[in-house]
Amino acid sequence: MPKVDLASIERTSTTGYPPPFDKDVAGRHYRRLAPAHGLTDFGVSEVTLDPGAWSSQRHWHYGEDEFLVMIEGQAVLVEDDGRTVLRAGDLAAWPKGAANGHHLINESDAPCRFIVIGGGENKGGCYSDIDMMWDTTDGYVHKDGTPY
Amino acid sequence: MPKVDLASIERTSTTGYPPPFDKDVAGRHYRRLAPAHGLTDFGVSEVTLDPGAWSSQRHWHYGEDEFLVMIEGQAVLVEDDGRTVLRAGDLAAWPKGAANGHHLINESDAPCRFIVIGGGENKGGCYSDIDMMWDTTDGYVHKDGTPY
Repeated sequence: MPKVDLASIERTSTTGYPPPFDKDVAGRHYRRLAPAHGLTDFGVSEVTLDPGAWSSQRHWHYGEDEFLVMIEGQAVLVEDDGRTVLRAGDLAAWPKGAANGHHLINESDAPCRFIVIGGGENKGGCYSDIDMMWDTTDGYVHKDGTPY
Repeated sequence: MPKVDLASIERTSTTGYPPPFDKDVAGRHYRRLAPAHGLTDFGVSEVTLDPGAWSSQRHWHYGEDEFLVMIEGQAVLVEDDGRTVLRAGDLAAWPKGAANGHHLINESDAPCRFIVIGGGENKGGCYSDIDMMWDTTDGYVHKDGTPY
């Protein structure tokens, strides 16, 4: 059935972030939609942010493009150059390798939901505001390469 | 600017379909969003269907996954196994190689809009209801391989 039946797909709230960075995403819940539908050319997630929750620590990817479609509620997109409110129907695009970290924060009093698509090659990524990187061999590491 | 400014991106209504298959998509308008934002890992289009317009002739792809996010209005998804109404916030997924053609028809009295993502390798495609295929060398051809 090509129409996505969200209720049939497991929703998770886990994160691999080491403390204390995990706390900011405690109210983030997501479903991985691509595996459930046999898609392999890109990843697709449905993400819900409770009020106050962050989508991630602010980051950018070395090898993966990202695209976002806001479908419910609103959140604030935070980047190097400021803050932008995204509302239902708004879109955002992040090309790989652009060293301008991004994340969404739900500053409203209602949940928000968005669809995010990621493609390309996972070569790791960098977190803008904290001493953390994602290394494809070692996972979450400090910016000097030592592990958490 | 990662937030997509749709008004700044050219909107087109062209099609390469040979007559009479072009008439069904005459009320389809689209913007190519990926090139405007430097995305190369997948394609992204914003598509608007006027009342009565089709998204395409009913088709499936040999080498490309597709994913759709309805963001405004509603349309009917038509496939081998029936009709499904898609409303704002609804999602649909089509894995490459699944020989179940799909398209959307706007049967409502207001425009509808959706975002569609495509990835993978363009190996051509097949049209379910008409004597047409897409060949990566020859373009639109009859199912016996002769060109239009």
